[in-house]
Amino acid sequence: MKNYENLKKHFVKISRFNHLASICSWDQAAMMPAGGNAARSEAMAELALHVHDLQNKTELVDWYAGAESEDLSAEQKASLVEMKRVWEDDKIIPAELVEAKSLANSKCEHAWRTQRGENDWAGFLGNFTEVVNLSQQEAKIRAEHAGSSAYDAMLSLYEPGTTTASLDALFADVKTWLPDMVMEISEKQKSEALIKFGSDFPIDAQKKLGLKAMDLLGFDFEHGRLDVSVHPFCGGVPTDVRITTRYDESEFVSAMMGVIHETGHACYEQGLPQHLAGLPAGMARSMGIHESQSLFFEMQVGRSQEFLGLMSPMLSDLFAETNAGAFGADNLAKAYTRVKPGHIRVDADEATYPAHIILRYEIERDLMNGVIEAKDVPELWAQKMQEYLGVDTKGNYKDGCIQDIHWTMGAFGYFPSYTLGAMYAAQFKAAMLKSVDVNAAINAGDLSPIFDWLRTNIWQKASIFSTDDLVTQATGETLNAAYFKAHLQARYL
Amino acid sequence: MKNYENLKKHFVKISRFNHLASICSWDQAAMMPAGGNAARSEAMAELALHVHDLQNKTELVDWYAGAESEDLSAEQKASLVEMKRVWEDDKIIPAELVEAKSLANSKCEHAWRTQRGENDWAGFLGNFTEVVNLSQQEAKIRAEHAGSSAYDAMLSLYEPGTTTASLDALFADVKTWLPDMVMEISEKQKSEALIKFGSDFPIDAQKKLGLKAMDLLGFDFEHGRLDVSVHPFCGGVPTDVRITTRYDESEFVSAMMGVIHETGHACYEQGLPQHLAGLPAGMARSMGIHESQSLFFEMQVGRSQEFLGLMSPMLSDLFAETNAGAFGADNLAKAYTRVKPGHIRVDADEATYPAHIILRYEIERDLMNGVIEAKDVPELWAQKMQEYLGVDTKGNYKDGCIQDIHWTMGAFGYFPSYTLGAMYAAQFKAAMLKSVDVNAAINAGDLSPIFDWLRTNIWQKASIFSTDDLVTQATGETLNAAYFKAHLQARYL
Repeated sequence: MKNYENLKKHFVKISRFNHLASICSWDQAAMMPAGGNAARSEAMAELALHVHDLQNKTELVDWYAGAESEDLSAEQKASLVEMKRVWEDDKIIPAELVEAKSLANSKCEHAWRTQRGENDWAGFLGNFTEVVNLSQQEAKIRAEHAGSSAYDAMLSLYEPGTTTASLDALFADVKTWLPDMVMEISEKQKSEALIKFGSDFPIDAQKKLGLKAMDLLGFDFEHGRLDVSVHPFCGGVPTDVRITTRYDESEFVSAMMGVIHETGHACYEQGLPQHLAGLPAGMARSMGIHESQSLFFEMQVGRSQEFLGLMSPMLSDLFAETNAGAFGADNLAKAYTRVKPGHIRVDADEATYPAHIILRYEIERDLMNGVIEAKDVPELWAQKMQEYLGVDTKGNYKDGCIQDIHWTMGAFGYFPSYTLGAMYAAQFKAAMLKSVDVNAAINAGDLSPIFDWLRTNIWQKASIFSTDDLVTQATGETLNAAYFKAHLQARYL
Repeated sequence: MKNYENLKKHFVKISRFNHLASICSWDQAAMMPAGGNAARSEAMAELALHVHDLQNKTELVDWYAGAESEDLSAEQKASLVEMKRVWEDDKIIPAELVEAKSLANSKCEHAWRTQRGENDWAGFLGNFTEVVNLSQQEAKIRAEHAGSSAYDAMLSLYEPGTTTASLDALFADVKTWLPDMVMEISEKQKSEALIKFGSDFPIDAQKKLGLKAMDLLGFDFEHGRLDVSVHPFCGGVPTDVRITTRYDESEFVSAMMGVIHETGHACYEQGLPQHLAGLPAGMARSMGIHESQSLFFEMQVGRSQEFLGLMSPMLSDLFAETNAGAFGADNLAKAYTRVKPGHIRVDADEATYPAHIILRYEIERDLMNGVIEAKDVPELWAQKMQEYLGVDTKGNYKDGCIQDIHWTMGAFGYFPSYTLGAMYAAQFKAAMLKSVDVNAAINAGDLSPIFDWLRTNIWQKASIFSTDDLVTQATGETLNAAYFKAHLQARYL
């Protein structure tokens, strides 16, 4: 097993440099003063270059060839497959294209930060065209190597195993029922009275609330922490997971649910198998499975009336509330399940969210496959927003096609993960219910049976199995959107 | 200038990895949860190994040889000298000795953390003997290379240019007047009434106080921040300086002065010349000069009645104080200049501090030169403490010879920096007074003339000149302990 052991050692070495990159990235977002940015960015770029060199070390070719004929256990074989996948994903793109993409993406992203506020589509298009062109080049190279379509090749960077064919079928089905369901829910909620919350929620108390929620949700504070950043995220490393949120003193609703969402990501990372630490097989399976954990925590647990019932006394302890009944579990559940079509994806509720994703999926798929061009995006956006959500975005690029950061960085193929995650979460919940009384566990304030199921079926399996195998082992079938539809119907209708 | 340029690029590259190491070290001390330590330590060790490889890159030999004959400016020549010094300091120690030292030091330091509390000299000696032996081996190699004594060779790692001969002379003089002066001051202070402070100083308010002091002292918050750690330090990088302190809710005195001290280190780092960023010539001159800046801020500014007069109204604003007059400038100055011989170096006042250092200097010098052995340390310690400070430490190893971390890590040659720093600070103050009305600047609450002098004479000169040249350019002479003596006399007698 000399070759396999060499590969393993090499990946562990790479993971150590990535550990430092993760911590320094977190620091950049959560701690670093503005004046530190230039030198930090240079240091991070130097490290990225070093990691790239390690990933392309000459000896790897021989080690992979040698390892194929070594006597490996099933897990080691799976580990080898994952190492090779990561290695090939990285090495097939020529260094010049990597550099050109990095420059074009940085330029587009940097300019976008002001262009968005100024609703400047024309300015954005100037940079975005180059981003699309270079990503198309990347997609073409990956597609030739994989023998797939251009978009499929990009998709596999985030969701290995998922194809355009499967997404087309999945989303076509969703489009047949979602717009009507959203209208029906909106109609129903019109008559539901919601007691308004006050407007004074001190940050210190909100932080305490978040920490209590994390504690309830099994976050291991010996291996992680909660901080503040402009854009909430989950970073760090499995032994030291860093989650962030942002606070608004006039309301607690967003920060609390944001912390619950990130805690789902964090518990997945903290629950990964330690004996595979540093190896690709020991990492999270995909962006969609990662999102399935954050959305399990947020949608399947966090927004349930049972869980909000647990939070209710904490809210009363921490905040002065003059509107009687505002912090009651029933009212909290209403507040956390309002459905309303809107412009902005990140503000969308769980029922309208898939519409935002399907729209982006259809556009980025056609962009990568060369069916449409960058300049066509706004018209398609406006047309689809009207069709799927009845929302008018014409001329409103700011709250329309330039609202997200993903495309500015060339991350075409990422968006489907959000809705795949929501669907997997609903499917996991349905499977979990066969052996776990979820509501009873939440009502008792001891959610460990829920975490045990997730640890055994998802977290500890990391990337040892393909997504389809992982999901089949956990639920008895591959992705089935019926569970998500049933979840929405049960909760909202 | 091809070879010089190659060297420069290479050192900038190394500095980028060191940047990440600095931030991750700071994180380890100030942010990281305990469970993150094992993986973090592995990642840091991997990075250290990489930096070591870069520092010993084969091409460097040719680049140094080639650069010698290139047409360089005076500053570039100085930069080349510093690069070569750092390179040689690193490369002359064989890899096996570096590794053996690293293991022995880690073992000794780790065990010391419990042995100290248990007053366990015998247990400590078991590990310490090996630390001394390996450091002696290192000292011997360095001495042969430098043509110096063993201790001189170790000293040059922290204070290049300083020799045993100069320290012997310097400290011999101090020993003629310091013990008597300490007794005289103690006697005088017996009759000085001190109004006691209360015992409720909330951490939030103490943090505000520290930030106000930093602001007054010119700390650039665009390029740094203040946090908490068990052992206060100044870390990070010049564009992003991280200082830490620790708070005790029952008193504000230590944390406030600790912040002022670290702010001195921080302003030196923030004031280093940007055009030499990443190069050895652009870094702080020595540990002694670094300490001269922290002690300038603490002793020459922070503990002056004028500066404490500026802090006085802030203290009254932030804390409820029942003892009338406690926060008056006069009383604050008394509290901050109490002199009392004691066991612990880090708790010592500025008058007794040099005695702690001279004692350590004499012992570590003789250890490195093979004049004494590890087992001889306690007896020498007890004898010298009695002689220099009239303090009995017999059998009290905990508050005696195993109180400090330095020797556990093999840092022989470091201690003199503390007293050199105090002396340089007094000498800089005397020179500054020729052109700056220091007290008037402090009284006016605008200390910028002080910082301007330090920036021009110390910070911006980094390591372009030798310590002797730097000090001569700033003050007209090399180190002269008379200024330190005069400072103590003026303040205390």
